[in-house]
Amino acid sequence: MHTAANSAAPPAGPGQASPGQVWAHVGQAFTPQDYDVVILGAGRMGSVLAFYLRQLAPRLRLLLLEEGGLPNEDGATLLAPGVWTTWGVPQDRRAQATWTREQLHTAFGDISFQTRPLIELFAAGGPDRSPTADALAPFPDALALVDVAALPFARVDSGAATYRPGALALAAAQMAVKAGADLMLNARAHAALTPQASGGLVTIERLSVTNTHQIVVHETHRLRAATLVLALGADGPHAAEHDLGLHTTHARAYRQTPRLNAPSSDDTPVLRAAGLTLRPQNGGFTLIPAVHHRDPHGYTPTGGHLTGVPTGLRRETLEDLVALMEALPPLGTGALGLGRSISDVPGAWLALPGGRADGLPLHQRLADGVHLLLGGPHADTLGLAVAHDLAAAVAGREHRPWQDEDEPAR
Amino acid sequence: MHTAANSAAPPAGPGQASPGQVWAHVGQAFTPQDYDVVILGAGRMGSVLAFYLRQLAPRLRLLLLEEGGLPNEDGATLLAPGVWTTWGVPQDRRAQATWTREQLHTAFGDISFQTRPLIELFAAGGPDRSPTADALAPFPDALALVDVAALPFARVDSGAATYRPGALALAAAQMAVKAGADLMLNARAHAALTPQASGGLVTIERLSVTNTHQIVVHETHRLRAATLVLALGADGPHAAEHDLGLHTTHARAYRQTPRLNAPSSDDTPVLRAAGLTLRPQNGGFTLIPAVHHRDPHGYTPTGGHLTGVPTGLRRETLEDLVALMEALPPLGTGALGLGRSISDVPGAWLALPGGRADGLPLHQRLADGVHLLLGGPHADTLGLAVAHDLAAAVAGREHRPWQDEDEPAR
Repeated sequence: MHTAANSAAPPAGPGQASPGQVWAHVGQAFTPQDYDVVILGAGRMGSVLAFYLRQLAPRLRLLLLEEGGLPNEDGATLLAPGVWTTWGVPQDRRAQATWTREQLHTAFGDISFQTRPLIELFAAGGPDRSPTADALAPFPDALALVDVAALPFARVDSGAATYRPGALALAAAQMAVKAGADLMLNARAHAALTPQASGGLVTIERLSVTNTHQIVVHETHRLRAATLVLALGADGPHAAEHDLGLHTTHARAYRQTPRLNAPSSDDTPVLRAAGLTLRPQNGGFTLIPAVHHRDPHGYTPTGGHLTGVPTGLRRETLEDLVALMEALPPLGTGALGLGRSISDVPGAWLALPGGRADGLPLHQRLADGVHLLLGGPHADTLGLAVAHDLAAAVAGREHRPWQDEDEPAR
Repeated sequence: MHTAANSAAPPAGPGQASPGQVWAHVGQAFTPQDYDVVILGAGRMGSVLAFYLRQLAPRLRLLLLEEGGLPNEDGATLLAPGVWTTWGVPQDRRAQATWTREQLHTAFGDISFQTRPLIELFAAGGPDRSPTADALAPFPDALALVDVAALPFARVDSGAATYRPGALALAAAQMAVKAGADLMLNARAHAALTPQASGGLVTIERLSVTNTHQIVVHETHRLRAATLVLALGADGPHAAEHDLGLHTTHARAYRQTPRLNAPSSDDTPVLRAAGLTLRPQNGGFTLIPAVHHRDPHGYTPTGGHLTGVPTGLRRETLEDLVALMEALPPLGTGALGLGRSISDVPGAWLALPGGRADGLPLHQRLADGVHLLLGGPHADTLGLAVAHDLAAAVAGREHRPWQDEDEPAR
């Protein structure tokens, strides 16, 4: 199933491939053909999977499908914090995290990768904690945000790093295309299991936009994928159940990332307190609230009221920020972009692998030749390794690059 | 503030009081007067508070207000499991739990109180666990529900008990009225803080039902309460914020209690597995699913689909039951009352004190002379003690009956 039997193109090794085709809009004619691998979703996980598949299995004909543009403005990738840290990563996944960091640094060109300390602040002391005043002394921008008396203790991850997940997804997709992957944008896809065979049948609806800004289906195609991967983020588990009839235990949560207009620079560390991450970005801060648990099915995000005042932040996030206003005084000022309705605040559905708020990225076999690929809350730190792991499995490789170097390579 | 200064009635001790007035419908004329204590909500917590207040402070003029009937069919009291157990109760609250059990047994007449073992089943062994086959051997009704191979280990709380929380609320309210409390049903109340004074102002909307089953406001009254208690269950925190402008951190979750039509008797123990409680009731079982976390603000409960089939159970509950179907095979049969829409399955909003799924009952001072009283998930075991504690505080008593008996009594 992973051979290039269906491929009309001549076999090509890495570096020798001719670029794949790109269909960006319905004006470009598309003649359906069967593929060895079809990936639904060109967010970070799907794009990176396509990139690694071109490296590990260049003979496989590969199609990457994306409902929106590159990157999709409704997806979680664009709003992901882009903070690499080993905090929260179990010991047995540390090698994957370290490998992911190296890849982020070197493999995708300029994705604004930089080493940048992550400093977590606490009300109480503990192991590995030092005085906040000392930890923040070199960083006046950060110090200005904090009431040191309320959060007098700090721990530092000096090996942390930041990057732009949207830039990563774009670079990975472009490099995959350059290495021979086909890519279709503005294409909504539905999958079905292939009767009595592995892989899946894919129905592609090519979308266009009318003069009145309605999204309509321009044309529909069907093709067969020997291997099918759902890389649809928080929509993946729904697609698995709705399209394929395969129930999973994954869930999702709606995470908003409001803006805090307090000055930051490239030298400002990432701050964290009570689960809230303050990520320096574009001269200010993006706030990434803690995800405490999944949202129930049927929940529609709505702006919350606090003692009568409407805001664009959902109530749960608002409560978390209110609880931190004394410790981080700028949260109580007009610097915080509260908005007045839900559409005023950037937000996206985040996949929660295993239904857990601390779920780690994973891939999961749903049926023979059908896989689910999920990023979730730790995709910044482990996503590349998990995508690579699936690519290697599809390619039939035994070795993983983060494994002991004493082991025989590939 | 707790004196009977406003009272026109002569002081009366316990046992000597003349009964209070009851306004059940708008045909009974009501002339507003000020009260020493007004309790909003005649569910379990409010009714029991009224009962203890008549015992501890019989001179205080007391009004109990309830939006529905006795008990309110939309409230959490009627659907509460009515399972007393010390499991999950911290050591420092055990004396309150024991006192609550004694009160349930003796103080409220026939509320179907009976000692009944609670048996929790596990896939793995551990301290205090014995073979399930042994633990369930005396109980063939219970044994018939369980795949013993899937849940081979059990622990037993032989001191557990069951009762009917709805019967408790009704009895407590009736006894409070008999001891002199006034009670108004079908009365929606809104509270406001009293400017420059303690207590609150209460606006009462007396409700009636039209020929077309619309609920309308028949008349509106205003009165003053020197002490005001919000005992509105899951609606209490909302009322505190909306009516009084006082933000709290409490939350709520929508809990459904589907029926399992498998035979049970008065001798059948309560079963528990993976957080699901199976409560023998009316010849079958009421299922009480685990509450994992609060529901977000703005969530509207909806029936879930499982691989396309619509049910009346919300999706999260459905997933928990599906995960248990192998261990408890009747869950996978028509014996489970799944329903086809949310209105088919009994359910109610449950208060989560402190926003926590394991929050303990509490009372909280919101303002001078204004209190919030919350039951929540552990109201069955600790609710009476917490209501008594608030009654004693309002009455100015130092002693609590569950305190060491060596201490001076009252």
